[in-house]
Amino acid sequence: MIKASVIGGTGYAGQELIRILMRHPEVEIVTVGSRSYAGQKFSDVYANYENLTDLICEAANIQELAEQSDVIFLAMPHGIASKMVTDEILQQTKIIDLGADFRLKDIDIYEDWYKTEHFNQPLLKEAVYGLCELHRDDIKKAQLISNPGCYTTCSILSLAPLVKNNLIDVNSIIIDAKSGVTGAGRSAILTSMYSECNESIKAYKIGEHRHTPEIEQELGLLSDSCFNLLFTPHLVPMNRGILALSYATLTKSITQTEIRDLYKAFYQDEYFVRLTGDRMPETRWVKGTNFCDIGVKLDERTNHVVVVGAIDNLIKGAAGQAVQNMNIAFELDEKTGIDFIADFPI
Amino acid sequence: MIKASVIGGTGYAGQELIRILMRHPEVEIVTVGSRSYAGQKFSDVYANYENLTDLICEAANIQELAEQSDVIFLAMPHGIASKMVTDEILQQTKIIDLGADFRLKDIDIYEDWYKTEHFNQPLLKEAVYGLCELHRDDIKKAQLISNPGCYTTCSILSLAPLVKNNLIDVNSIIIDAKSGVTGAGRSAILTSMYSECNESIKAYKIGEHRHTPEIEQELGLLSDSCFNLLFTPHLVPMNRGILALSYATLTKSITQTEIRDLYKAFYQDEYFVRLTGDRMPETRWVKGTNFCDIGVKLDERTNHVVVVGAIDNLIKGAAGQAVQNMNIAFELDEKTGIDFIADFPI
Amino acid sequence: MIKASVIGGTGYAGQELIRILMRHPEVEIVTVGSRSYAGQKFSDVYANYENLTDLICEAANIQELAEQSDVIFLAMPHGIASKMVTDEILQQTKIIDLGADFRLKDIDIYEDWYKTEHFNQPLLKEAVYGLCELHRDDIKKAQLISNPGCYTTCSILSLAPLVKNNLIDVNSIIIDAKSGVTGAGRSAILTSMYSECNESIKAYKIGEHRHTPEIEQELGLLSDSCFNLLFTPHLVPMNRGILALSYATLTKSITQTEIRDLYKAFYQDEYFVRLTGDRMPETRWVKGTNFCDIGVKLDERTNHVVVVGAIDNLIKGAAGQAVQNMNIAFELDEKTGIDFIADFPI
Amino acid sequence: MIKASVIGGTGYAGQELIRILMRHPEVEIVTVGSRSYAGQKFSDVYANYENLTDLICEAANIQELAEQSDVIFLAMPHGIASKMVTDEILQQTKIIDLGADFRLKDIDIYEDWYKTEHFNQPLLKEAVYGLCELHRDDIKKAQLISNPGCYTTCSILSLAPLVKNNLIDVNSIIIDAKSGVTGAGRSAILTSMYSECNESIKAYKIGEHRHTPEIEQELGLLSDSCFNLLFTPHLVPMNRGILALSYATLTKSITQTEIRDLYKAFYQDEYFVRLTGDRMPETRWVKGTNFCDIGVKLDERTNHVVVVGAIDNLIKGAAGQAVQNMNIAFELDEKTGIDFIADFPI
Repeated sequence: MIKASVIGGTGYAGQELIRILMRHPEVEIVTVGSRSYAGQKFSDVYANYENLTDLICEAANIQELAEQSDVIFLAMPHGIASKMVTDEILQQTKIIDLGADFRLKDIDIYEDWYKTEHFNQPLLKEAVYGLCELHRDDIKKAQLISNPGCYTTCSILSLAPLVKNNLIDVNSIIIDAKSGVTGAGRSAILTSMYSECNESIKAYKIGEHRHTPEIEQELGLLSDSCFNLLFTPHLVPMNRGILALSYATLTKSITQTEIRDLYKAFYQDEYFVRLTGDRMPETRWVKGTNFCDIGVKLDERTNHVVVVGAIDNLIKGAAGQAVQNMNIAFELDEKTGIDFIADFPI
Repeated sequence: MIKASVIGGTGYAGQELIRILMRHPEVEIVTVGSRSYAGQKFSDVYANYENLTDLICEAANIQELAEQSDVIFLAMPHGIASKMVTDEILQQTKIIDLGADFRLKDIDIYEDWYKTEHFNQPLLKEAVYGLCELHRDDIKKAQLISNPGCYTTCSILSLAPLVKNNLIDVNSIIIDAKSGVTGAGRSAILTSMYSECNESIKAYKIGEHRHTPEIEQELGLLSDSCFNLLFTPHLVPMNRGILALSYATLTKSITQTEIRDLYKAFYQDEYFVRLTGDRMPETRWVKGTNFCDIGVKLDERTNHVVVVGAIDNLIKGAAGQAVQNMNIAFELDEKTGIDFIADFPI
Repeated sequence: MIKASVIGGTGYAGQELIRILMRHPEVEIVTVGSRSYAGQKFSDVYANYENLTDLICEAANIQELAEQSDVIFLAMPHGIASKMVTDEILQQTKIIDLGADFRLKDIDIYEDWYKTEHFNQPLLKEAVYGLCELHRDDIKKAQLISNPGCYTTCSILSLAPLVKNNLIDVNSIIIDAKSGVTGAGRSAILTSMYSECNESIKAYKIGEHRHTPEIEQELGLLSDSCFNLLFTPHLVPMNRGILALSYATLTKSITQTEIRDLYKAFYQDEYFVRLTGDRMPETRWVKGTNFCDIGVKLDERTNHVVVVGAIDNLIKGAAGQAVQNMNIAFELDEKTGIDFIADFPI
Repeated sequence: MIKASVIGGTGYAGQELIRILMRHPEVEIVTVGSRSYAGQKFSDVYANYENLTDLICEAANIQELAEQSDVIFLAMPHGIASKMVTDEILQQTKIIDLGADFRLKDIDIYEDWYKTEHFNQPLLKEAVYGLCELHRDDIKKAQLISNPGCYTTCSILSLAPLVKNNLIDVNSIIIDAKSGVTGAGRSAILTSMYSECNESIKAYKIGEHRHTPEIEQELGLLSDSCFNLLFTPHLVPMNRGILALSYATLTKSITQTEIRDLYKAFYQDEYFVRLTGDRMPETRWVKGTNFCDIGVKLDERTNHVVVVGAIDNLIKGAAGQAVQNMNIAFELDEKTGIDFIADFPI
């Protein structure tokens, strides 16, 4: 059994992680770290766990946890993990960080987009970017895995085959993404209130969202080039789910069938990427699952390709992929404990 | 492995059943019956199954299915199952009927509330009312199990300890229940449309809902008496969940602590009934699960007891309890395949 | 033109008041008081007013406002208004208080339910309870009008004809009420967050909600007696609307038609009370309006009468009724500025 | 008083029209035409009208209506209006058609996108495209006004200043639009059901939506050129509202301030277009109103301009703009009867 701890276990991603780990056949949860709820029963914070666990939230010390745990998941706001993690800790345990601290390889880009200093440049090199479908081999050997952002996961998986095959003008890429409200976390702020979100949709941080450089970094690696793209997120009145539409102009003459075949080839061994053919993805079909559904549409009238990607932001976009990373790193069947079917209608 | 078939597998309860059975470690699905979608891939009807199953919907013949199956689940509108099921079929296979045909023991009450003739009185006696927590011993031996209604399950479990212990005036019982829209099924009717349900709440069939006599029958058995109660359902703008508030006047002087102790005693061995203490049940904590959460509040000012019950209408109120019944009838651990934790927020 | 000011203009009820007053043909808004947003443009707090007003929020002083205003609306948490209002102020201006400070005539009941001392007992006698349909004559002459609570308005109007005509056992009254999330105000608290409210329903403060004694006071006056009733509120995933089901046992033999005729007689001159006949009220049909829709159902099986009442909690339950009170107090046509038709679907 | 009739008065746009006309100070409603509900009280179809009108739905004959009405609004599926309207009728009355029959000037484009023959080519030339802000002078003189589509209105108003000023490469235009469920009309179909729409978002008809050629036609007129653009609509779980993001590459070096100034100049006399500055539009701020809110953002990193437009699809996108057209055509103040402030939260 893998001994696992979670620091930041009472945010939405954290509790999703606990839920998955609690039912994972190869995992034993050692500690749930939560400063805000230290001393309280986890089932008092989240009543869905009533009768199902005796876990108590603790103001966890990462050094102690490292000694007791085979893996520690970190689910905290940016700027904290990079101060917590050290080489000593990484010699004792694997770290899977769901935050942003180790995602960007270029420290200047990090500091530019996050408007804060980064205190742990050496670990940036050591960290493996945990987008399982693209970096599986590195993940197998990694001690420090940096779990991708939610928008990022959906966007990169949507565009990877096109970029890798040089089919599109990378400078033309526009990603128009839509997210449910859980993406904003569990902090009680005005803009996350029911009556402020319900019955309305808005775009926010147009061209300025922090997931942008993450997408550019990974697609840049695939295309062996450096470029900027335009990323726009939206807030949609629903709990969960991300739908991302990626637009780009084609650089070659190619049919829709050929593009779809290329996607099939690219993802042929990937269980968690499902190609939807003529039917386009909808968030309801992936909700509660670790799947990324992808549909591709060629618009000949305008010479554009449109890729539709859908994930559950808290699962493939956070906790599920974190466990997928753990499964890879501990050489388990990648599906173990995360092979969910969407529960419909939900 | 238990060989299971479902007739009516493309309604909401039917698909929930398929989802549960597909992941049930002791079950193999033989056939998904659906007249409306006969010949289509199940994953074309419900795209959450994309890549996960090759099941094809069939215009199933119950005689043939009976030969191939250890158990057949029926998930159809009332009036059909009672014409389908025969003694011959019951000699070959167990039947778990999610519809209303075999729930009411008194044929006159059935015909009065359902405004239709019942064609299979003999089987009414044979059928066991499948409210697991109350009829477990009979379910073990049953060939024909009549799965309770959704409102019914929540209402009866809420009131059973009070009625059994003669603590309330049964003639004072009022049940005010609220349901999500999936309770109305998957038929495309005006009153189930998004823009007609969203942002509104309504009561309907006040005192006239067909689950009323079912609750009266079961509580009557527990109290060894015959009485009428007032049941009011509501439609709430959410997909799933039932919250039922049961009100009754007390016949004895008793403290809230004593009542709660009595509930603990009554449900001490029941995994799927959770008593919530001072915190009152909310549908979100049981959504996607087979739990029935129950909270009890004594209002001394008015000498009333209020019981709050919450279930997921498609699971404990339909497919989950059906599988719980199957588990009991086939002598499996009752939790097998239905031990879900609510996925929050969803 | 009536010169009107609002103190507490940036809460949900306050902004609804501003919106109504801004289009009211006989009103000129003098001042919008808001401590939290003092100095900010009202249209920056609520962007629906973009281009439509130059109003600036002010940290208003009630003495100054009293000199400039014919009427001041107070929309604040309980405990503040009773310290603000004095006899001197009431000699200069009319006050319509949307808060709870002047609703309960019995100071002991106030202090018991609100767990706080009341500092202005003398004004309690002077204050008129502003439920327009019941106290119109007093409102005409009042300087201090205490606008009823939202649940209260719906509950009292639902039951008044039954109580006034001694048709029900007042000790049997149970009110099961459901409210949209705006009822909880605009404070950013965990329980009002989108992902915590959406897709769930809960009951809260069963038998303990502060609107209970207000309902008891007013129905007590109508029945010329003193009694307790059981009131249960719920939180429903929608922005607005209250649906209240009131249950009581009949004390006389009477037909449904006779009861409905009695309601017609009771409300025959009331524009804002609509009797719905066989169709039961739904919140969507009153949303955005000042109507209270009422339906009555007799359940002969159990000798209960059920009354279904529906209002918009921010209009007939707050700002709309406040303006209705102003219209009465200033001898305008009662409908002026509040004669809305529900905008459907919304 | 203008005598107005509506044919197709019981769809969502139709009833919105009735609601506006009923409160319009210069209008008297002559007839509500509805084949589906002929003979029924309008308030039985839509209970928000209870007590407010005696209108009866009629299986209206357009010839008769033309004699009795100064204006007839048509709110029907495409293909019907073009068969109904004749020159004789237009000599007797003005027609404002909310459907698609007279929007496209090029009959081939119509037949290509609508997959049906058009039977009334002569009237295509006579019809004025009723986008008020662009065709006001023609509308003043028109007998036949073709009210624009909902997506169309939002998209054209968003892009007009850029296109008119030759600031963007028109071939780079991508419009990613999102709509509430009322956009799909009131037909009871599976994809419009509550449990099928709620908690999910999807794109549909990517590059194939019929509003595409309408946008191309009008932007083509402004740019004096012919081009194709990529338009993608989405279905969002809310009742009302359209948010459209329009993306394009700049053809000149220009600052964000300069672009915004240009929008101010373009729309300086337009009451119903509001420019939101740094704050980007959200559908909640225009819901229930005739406003189109527009925000412009320059993304220098990628040389793109992003325009965010928001409207209420049933008002500025249908019934509101139809009445705005009527006001213009009858030389009333353009705001008459449609000067709504969004009711928040709703």
